[in-house]
Amino acid sequence: MAEQISEEVHQRRREALAGRLGTDAALITRPVNVRYLTGLASSNAALLVRADGGAVLATDGRYAGTAARVCSGIEIVIDRAVAAVLLDRTAGPVAFEAHEMTVEQHAGLFDGREGVPLGRVVEDLRMVKDESEIALLRRACEITDRAFAAVLPTIVPGVTEKEVAVVLERHMIDLGADGIAFETIVASGPNGAIPHHEPGGRAVADGDLVTMDFGALVGGYHADMTRTVAVGTVATWQKELYDLVATAQEAGWRAAVPGADTRDVDAAARDLISAAGHAGDFPHGLGHGVGLEIHEAPLLGHSTAGKLRDRVPLTAEPGVYLAGRGGVRIEDTLVVRDSGPELLTQTTKELLVL
Amino acid sequence: MAEQISEEVHQRRREALAGRLGTDAALITRPVNVRYLTGLASSNAALLVRADGGAVLATDGRYAGTAARVCSGIEIVIDRAVAAVLLDRTAGPVAFEAHEMTVEQHAGLFDGREGVPLGRVVEDLRMVKDESEIALLRRACEITDRAFAAVLPTIVPGVTEKEVAVVLERHMIDLGADGIAFETIVASGPNGAIPHHEPGGRAVADGDLVTMDFGALVGGYHADMTRTVAVGTVATWQKELYDLVATAQEAGWRAAVPGADTRDVDAAARDLISAAGHAGDFPHGLGHGVGLEIHEAPLLGHSTAGKLRDRVPLTAEPGVYLAGRGGVRIEDTLVVRDSGPELLTQTTKELLVL
Repeated sequence: MAEQISEEVHQRRREALAGRLGTDAALITRPVNVRYLTGLASSNAALLVRADGGAVLATDGRYAGTAARVCSGIEIVIDRAVAAVLLDRTAGPVAFEAHEMTVEQHAGLFDGREGVPLGRVVEDLRMVKDESEIALLRRACEITDRAFAAVLPTIVPGVTEKEVAVVLERHMIDLGADGIAFETIVASGPNGAIPHHEPGGRAVADGDLVTMDFGALVGGYHADMTRTVAVGTVATWQKELYDLVATAQEAGWRAAVPGADTRDVDAAARDLISAAGHAGDFPHGLGHGVGLEIHEAPLLGHSTAGKLRDRVPLTAEPGVYLAGRGGVRIEDTLVVRDSGPELLTQTTKELLVL
Repeated sequence: MAEQISEEVHQRRREALAGRLGTDAALITRPVNVRYLTGLASSNAALLVRADGGAVLATDGRYAGTAARVCSGIEIVIDRAVAAVLLDRTAGPVAFEAHEMTVEQHAGLFDGREGVPLGRVVEDLRMVKDESEIALLRRACEITDRAFAAVLPTIVPGVTEKEVAVVLERHMIDLGADGIAFETIVASGPNGAIPHHEPGGRAVADGDLVTMDFGALVGGYHADMTRTVAVGTVATWQKELYDLVATAQEAGWRAAVPGADTRDVDAAARDLISAAGHAGDFPHGLGHGVGLEIHEAPLLGHSTAGKLRDRVPLTAEPGVYLAGRGGVRIEDTLVVRDSGPELLTQTTKELLVL
């Protein structure tokens, strides 16, 4: 599916990286960054980008055919020792991804040569998406919305969390997803108090809130949506909790505008939850960037720094978790736009009572 | 699903690690190794194991509930800075996973303190499985076999590779898999010459060989099977190629006995392929260990060292790839046993002509 991003785009990305280098060359070893800069999705590939914009890709024999097809614009070396063979083609200090390269790899590769941490330069470049990337994300979110609509009739007393998860995942694949974006979360009743609950054999019962956190993967891009629904009778505390989280979620995504500080976006939602006495029941950040990774820059949290920009896809996902009772989380994938936030997941956020 | 491995087993594993330490304590940060030693599957967890067998697990608030439920036998610390908080509880040299920890993490964590590379001690422990792990792997392989049987009627001229992949994956989920073990490969006709071909829009045609490489995930354990089938008319070169790979595959898995050198197991298959003039058309190792990771120790290749032991699950997957024409790969997941190799994938290796 990587072919949906053109070689011209990949070339432009490499030039943007080259323009930011403080060394003659950078060795890119994070697989997702190699994919971003070349289109090749491989578990064993490395890319050398020179300050003049030239690039050499190394991968092993398993990916030789795919690399030749996908990466038409650059030199390709087929060798299992992908990073070593590229390093041999340079002299002098080389920038490397110290946040990806292990201590062991570094010791074996550099062995006295000078390596300079590159920092998260490629991750920073990846943060602002082009429209071809947003189109893939939009398609992933459409599939996610449609799978949610399709699963609703199956959420009845007696169905297990695991069964709901399987139906959601099957619908996403049937609707054209390349895969699921991450392990589906279905948390019913008291399990809703566990933010990352793994769906199990618990049967949904009358009076439950059921939280579903899931998404489709399309062309390498990850959708991420959460909805919480009620089954049968809704208690007052459940309705109040839902309304609180829904109000906070809307405040959060509406604050996601170009120039906004990521802490302020988090605070827009968090302050409402804190004011309602639930500061300690919202133990995670408001959201995160999404793209070729399910979690990527920027993070939205109470201690994260950074400014939002046009064309940055994000999630907004406040949650309140009450141990032993249950929880509510509501999440959209959206894109920061100069014209205001664009919601990519469009499923209603009214409380659905099934 | 991690609950299927008991806390007693996790305790025994931690004691086995403790017995191999050359330092007072080891900091385990590879997520799959933390899972192996505690049962907790988390993207942010670390484990400190002391030479006396005591252990402390750190994870963040998202996993607090799951950790409390799954890891009944050890102290749990809830803190986002999982490795730092554990390191603060030790004095003196600490062993760390230099093959997992990044250069950046290491600089931030150790900052002058002495860290000693632990090496792949946990990976070595993981190589020999206990029967509860093999039972999960067997179940994953049964689902894989059954999904293959179910997909066969759909492989007809006109169906696309992607459609075949979706049907395979859907059957695995319907049959009870927790997920897929890795991205399904379906490679038809000339695409069969690409070992890691991503299934696309090519329609299967009469006269094609179609290679499918896929597997189910059950309780964290990964099945891995490949079969190549023929559609319609079979050319002589195709039949000869198939017979060669099938013969090599059987020679390979039969050589996987306790005490065998991994290079010799690889050679048992490779020598037959080389003798037929295809040495250059088999560009990967014969196989690899499988378990909590789809690729784990030991590797079976022409330059890998090591001896096989009882209860080591492996794949045996020779392939011959002819650029522009097509290819054949046949793969089983098996377990090395004192009583001889046990094939966990049991689908026929006769050439199926559909």
